[in-house]
Amino acid sequence: MPEFHAYAATSPKGILEPYSFDPGDIGPEEVEIKVTHCGICHSDLSMLNNDWGMSSYPFVPGHEVVGTVVALGEHAKGLKIGQRVGVGWSASSCLSCPQCISGDHNLCATTQGTIVGRHGGFADRLRVQWIWARPLPEGLDSKNAGPLLCGGVTVFTPLLGYDVSPSARVGVIGIGGLGHMALQFANKWGCEVHAFTTSDSKEAEARQLGAHHVHNTRSPDALKKLAGSLDLIISTINVPQNVPALLDTLAPHGRLHVVGAVLEPLQIPAFSLIMAQRSVTGSPTGSPSALDTMLSFSARHNVAPVIETFPMSKVNDALDHLRSGKARYRIVLENDIS
Amino acid sequence: MPEFHAYAATSPKGILEPYSFDPGDIGPEEVEIKVTHCGICHSDLSMLNNDWGMSSYPFVPGHEVVGTVVALGEHAKGLKIGQRVGVGWSASSCLSCPQCISGDHNLCATTQGTIVGRHGGFADRLRVQWIWARPLPEGLDSKNAGPLLCGGVTVFTPLLGYDVSPSARVGVIGIGGLGHMALQFANKWGCEVHAFTTSDSKEAEARQLGAHHVHNTRSPDALKKLAGSLDLIISTINVPQNVPALLDTLAPHGRLHVVGAVLEPLQIPAFSLIMAQRSVTGSPTGSPSALDTMLSFSARHNVAPVIETFPMSKVNDALDHLRSGKARYRIVLENDIS
Repeated sequence: MPEFHAYAATSPKGILEPYSFDPGDIGPEEVEIKVTHCGICHSDLSMLNNDWGMSSYPFVPGHEVVGTVVALGEHAKGLKIGQRVGVGWSASSCLSCPQCISGDHNLCATTQGTIVGRHGGFADRLRVQWIWARPLPEGLDSKNAGPLLCGGVTVFTPLLGYDVSPSARVGVIGIGGLGHMALQFANKWGCEVHAFTTSDSKEAEARQLGAHHVHNTRSPDALKKLAGSLDLIISTINVPQNVPALLDTLAPHGRLHVVGAVLEPLQIPAFSLIMAQRSVTGSPTGSPSALDTMLSFSARHNVAPVIETFPMSKVNDALDHLRSGKARYRIVLENDIS
Repeated sequence: MPEFHAYAATSPKGILEPYSFDPGDIGPEEVEIKVTHCGICHSDLSMLNNDWGMSSYPFVPGHEVVGTVVALGEHAKGLKIGQRVGVGWSASSCLSCPQCISGDHNLCATTQGTIVGRHGGFADRLRVQWIWARPLPEGLDSKNAGPLLCGGVTVFTPLLGYDVSPSARVGVIGIGGLGHMALQFANKWGCEVHAFTTSDSKEAEARQLGAHHVHNTRSPDALKKLAGSLDLIISTINVPQNVPALLDTLAPHGRLHVVGAVLEPLQIPAFSLIMAQRSVTGSPTGSPSALDTMLSFSARHNVAPVIETFPMSKVNDALDHLRSGKARYRIVLENDIS
């Protein structure tokens, strides 16, 4: 029988320990991946802590997975043994609902997350449905691909899915794990890029990543100066914000796009939407097609996360580093591939 | 000197009384209209009451104006003496800002409302900037045109300005002055139309106006049964609603569009936007180009408000009827054109 070797927590907020399990026979639609790299996303921590009440234990985190195909179910399509692939937040969809047949598999009501009721990529092997294992373009470094597959596509979809013009003025709120990739995408998309941060120490790096302007939102006038000027704001943070003040920075037809899963309701003044024809939108990760487009765009434009690497065996140190808020900006675990 | 004869209130919530004034020389960009009809919009009442703090007295209401051109300023363009025209919420724009030069004159920051700092259409004459006096298509009855010019375009823009497909399922909340026109537009746009009302008595009329389905939102299951099914909801009411429950009725990529100027902030759960890629949008009336498109669409499809008429001299009775909540659905004042 095959045996997968992973790192799992047996209870919420628990330490990860080596954990081996028998995955059973490969499913007909499944692909088995030998994991070389796995990014750590903040939602791995949320799931480890059972913040969203949908974690099951033993819990194996990891949904920014890069590796090579080592086995294919009999109905797995479009992939070959030995091919390099990546997996993000989603691992399986029904393939037949209105969302799936129109290419929005990520909006399928039955889509399973890679770490929701399944064992994730902090492991030597991973199995997912074939459509969620996306081939990686040649120019993309395996170390960098993982964070693009979840965090990357999450901030790419607000551009790709909404006909954003390269002539647009785009603000990015929160220069962290998501925002530092959003700055790069918006810059390479051709836009005028504004970074919003509460930390002056990030200004130089934000500019290096693609921001043309950096605003410290602790300054009371920072938002007022931008009144009516931005076409799009991508908010990557998950704490409550002064939404009316943000909306005021938007030009007529401007849009506030939320990807940070803040739990408190957004307070939206109807007048602000009506009088300047503004919008508030949100989106999760991305579809298989969006993943391919994002990967190809990233390879062509050298968009890459800023990463720190840890050996897979040091996974608890890596998680502590993320918890400390000091990760700059994404952590990637590497398997010993001797 | 010319003299205009109007009806004006001298203080907030006051009775309207005959009021004559000298309008001075016609401005170079102005057109003078002999008023034949003027609709009464709920915002005439709000302005009469100074609910929005921007009314000036003596106050002449009226911004759904139909009449004929009787004089043209030397730089007034595109109009002829004797031509039948209509005027809605807006009366003047700068013509040179980014919004105006891209055709969104209604989003110009300096646009003047027809009854904001100006004397409106409860009068025998009205002057506005030429671009806001729109020629009326031949097939359109003068009695019906007025309410289309403000209320009509307000509920037409959510279809016209957002690439709504005729295959979409569209809900309309509030079957009143705005909603009864929204049902007609959505039906003629080709959509599957759902009317939401709190009054069973409106069901038959809602169906006659174009609703394929009518839902009483007082029934606790009415919204639950529609979970994930609508592509667009146009909310025309200006009282707080259960926005999370409304969002739940939207399909993936669905959109809640607000035209009712509710004063309390909308409470929007970020997760509901993110997980199903939903949007919340809003819009004011419409641009000159949108007005023309709406008028032509209305003439071609026989879209018309359901109206009750009063002679202009009975304006106070007409306002009382509107205040009573019994208007079905729009009131139009007629001048004696002997």
